[in-house]
Amino acid sequence: MKVTDQFTVMPEGTITTPAGFRAGGLHCGLKKTTRYDLGIIVCDVPAQAAGVYTLNAFQAAPLGVTQASIAVDGKLQAVLVNSGNANACTGKQGEEDARAMRTAAAKAFGVAEHHVGVTSTGVIGELLPMPKVLSGIEELPSQVKADGAEDFCQAILTTDLVQKMTCVRLTVGGKTVHVAGAAKGSGMIHPNMATMLGFITTDANIANVHLQKLLNGVTDTTFNMITVDGDTSTNDMVVAMASGLAGNESLTPEHPDWAAFEAGFRYVAEYLAKAIARDGEGATKLIEVTVAGAESQEAARAIAKTVIGSSLVKSACFGADANWGRIIAAVGRAGQPVNTETVHIQLGDIVVLEQSRPVKFDEDRALAYLKGELVQILVNLNMGNESATAWGCDLTYDYVRINAAYRT
Amino acid sequence: MKVTDQFTVMPEGTITTPAGFRAGGLHCGLKKTTRYDLGIIVCDVPAQAAGVYTLNAFQAAPLGVTQASIAVDGKLQAVLVNSGNANACTGKQGEEDARAMRTAAAKAFGVAEHHVGVTSTGVIGELLPMPKVLSGIEELPSQVKADGAEDFCQAILTTDLVQKMTCVRLTVGGKTVHVAGAAKGSGMIHPNMATMLGFITTDANIANVHLQKLLNGVTDTTFNMITVDGDTSTNDMVVAMASGLAGNESLTPEHPDWAAFEAGFRYVAEYLAKAIARDGEGATKLIEVTVAGAESQEAARAIAKTVIGSSLVKSACFGADANWGRIIAAVGRAGQPVNTETVHIQLGDIVVLEQSRPVKFDEDRALAYLKGELVQILVNLNMGNESATAWGCDLTYDYVRINAAYRT
Repeated sequence: MKVTDQFTVMPEGTITTPAGFRAGGLHCGLKKTTRYDLGIIVCDVPAQAAGVYTLNAFQAAPLGVTQASIAVDGKLQAVLVNSGNANACTGKQGEEDARAMRTAAAKAFGVAEHHVGVTSTGVIGELLPMPKVLSGIEELPSQVKADGAEDFCQAILTTDLVQKMTCVRLTVGGKTVHVAGAAKGSGMIHPNMATMLGFITTDANIANVHLQKLLNGVTDTTFNMITVDGDTSTNDMVVAMASGLAGNESLTPEHPDWAAFEAGFRYVAEYLAKAIARDGEGATKLIEVTVAGAESQEAARAIAKTVIGSSLVKSACFGADANWGRIIAAVGRAGQPVNTETVHIQLGDIVVLEQSRPVKFDEDRALAYLKGELVQILVNLNMGNESATAWGCDLTYDYVRINAAYRT
Repeated sequence: MKVTDQFTVMPEGTITTPAGFRAGGLHCGLKKTTRYDLGIIVCDVPAQAAGVYTLNAFQAAPLGVTQASIAVDGKLQAVLVNSGNANACTGKQGEEDARAMRTAAAKAFGVAEHHVGVTSTGVIGELLPMPKVLSGIEELPSQVKADGAEDFCQAILTTDLVQKMTCVRLTVGGKTVHVAGAAKGSGMIHPNMATMLGFITTDANIANVHLQKLLNGVTDTTFNMITVDGDTSTNDMVVAMASGLAGNESLTPEHPDWAAFEAGFRYVAEYLAKAIARDGEGATKLIEVTVAGAESQEAARAIAKTVIGSSLVKSACFGADANWGRIIAAVGRAGQPVNTETVHIQLGDIVVLEQSRPVKFDEDRALAYLKGELVQILVNLNMGNESATAWGCDLTYDYVRINAAYRT
């Protein structure tokens, strides 16, 4: 992730730093503890909106409601989230409940129904306890504030160990613009799956059609390039909202500052994606796999994802084992063209394979490198000019412990 | 796996039970312990031969040598195997070494070079210590005997916990025919991957073209439907040899007893495949996933393999957690057509999902069932008439321990 002079990272920035956004959270009773389980991001004005949604055939009810809202006029003014219950595989009642949440939030905040998005994460196959949810929504407006980002983040977390949030500042046509993001993911929802939810806010003035295209492109190379265990949730969703309150002239791909905006937006998405991978269940380290020298983007991405998803590679990283045989085997089974004579592999700056042949390397140095918190694996196919990067984490005893636990 | 009246399982049968086969093993010094690491199956006559090979782009050297041997006249009289070194990613020297092993075995046993197959399993990327291997091969003839199957099996094992061998008897045109098999797999080759090697012997009289077709078809629904961790080795191979010494009239698909022969052959392959899955690294149980009611074989197989390969499903089985949400999520991400309203899921005979909606079930009974050594998961899509079964094992602390170990 390159931080360029196109934008500045704001260490104290949050999703409410972009002009127009407030947020909040509270405990309505979905989690057994007193931790927050209901949250909202609200904008002073209807914001240009874009969304990307899970490809899992069993899409949870809230995703359809959010899609329907954005479809009306491409705007959202509020995004509601609950944790503790995914409202997935809940049939018609689940759809009604998601719509009822939207209606209640619209009423509580005085915004149009079709300007409200709904997201959920948690247990699959259980109906929401709607009385708790609805009274929580009624109480939400009193909890929403300009510095409510932390509360919102608590409401989206489950077993995530750290909050995931970042913010950048850049200049568009002389005006200061902010892009910020928050995410949850990879923490196990007791008892179900690791849902990824992403929320991106910006005060840039940008039409939703451009925002959607930008979000699609950026998602392909960030959120879609992480894996904790290869399981795709029914609830994965990323929503972006642009308030336009920075007052810049409208951003289009032709605008001279588009590249800076895209770079800042990409930084936010990549930061969140890597934070999710690093906080993977039971993970002790972030693994970054870059495949270079591929004949096509498709091949580079497929191979990077196969390597990052290999249980054998993940276990070897946990054990700090410089086991390049597992890496090349994963490269070979990705179903993409490879030249079996030209593969180059290195761990950090330690070359272990050249022209597909093992290279003597310093095992102690490799061990020291692999024991670190970031392992960067480079695979150069030496066949073309395309490259791609994927992120994941090691496979540990704790992953098994977390995921073998009884639901009860 | 149905045992029909078409064949009889012989509990004491081995790969040398079919007429004409002998086998043996010895320690030549590839393994650090004194366990056998070199073995051979020899036939009294050139046997009709067939083989299936890994789809990994990085195919180890011995696979090419075996393919080249069979290509000459479709026959093999001996199959040599070594463990402790995979002879993979070893370049031109590796190819020369594999050919030298073939030459040495042909000389030692007095058979034609092109009637010798070579298989290897073990460390990737290290050259074979050829002096040890060649003197081992010279010594092999004195170790080969009619009851040498156990010795052969020891020579192919690595960290496999149990030997995997079976034999059936059936009648073809009034003659008694045997089909037997041995396999290794899923035990970790220190330090590399879980190679699967399968050896099938029969005394049936059958032309290699029919044997190859039978092996291809049976492999698709047996060896190709197991997964321990989704990693495909560079060395996977299954070889079948038919001595013809049962004296039956030549078997073709048109023969009235073809169905019985196919059933027996399939039993042997499925037995070995399930034994490999059950003996998966760190496994405490066998998991069997059947997908029924699919629109196509392709869809049924893809979904069954996605479910069996899900780390979340595998962890849940280890934890005896009746977590059907993970199962349906895996069904939904398999990239195959599913009707999200009609899915039925059961664990053993405990129905947990009907018409895609959760069913109240007895949690204690489910816990007791999942604690067993065999977990059968049935997913009925209720869309068509195709079905497929896949086998795997649970994901445990021991899997991580075994695979995180330093190579040193």
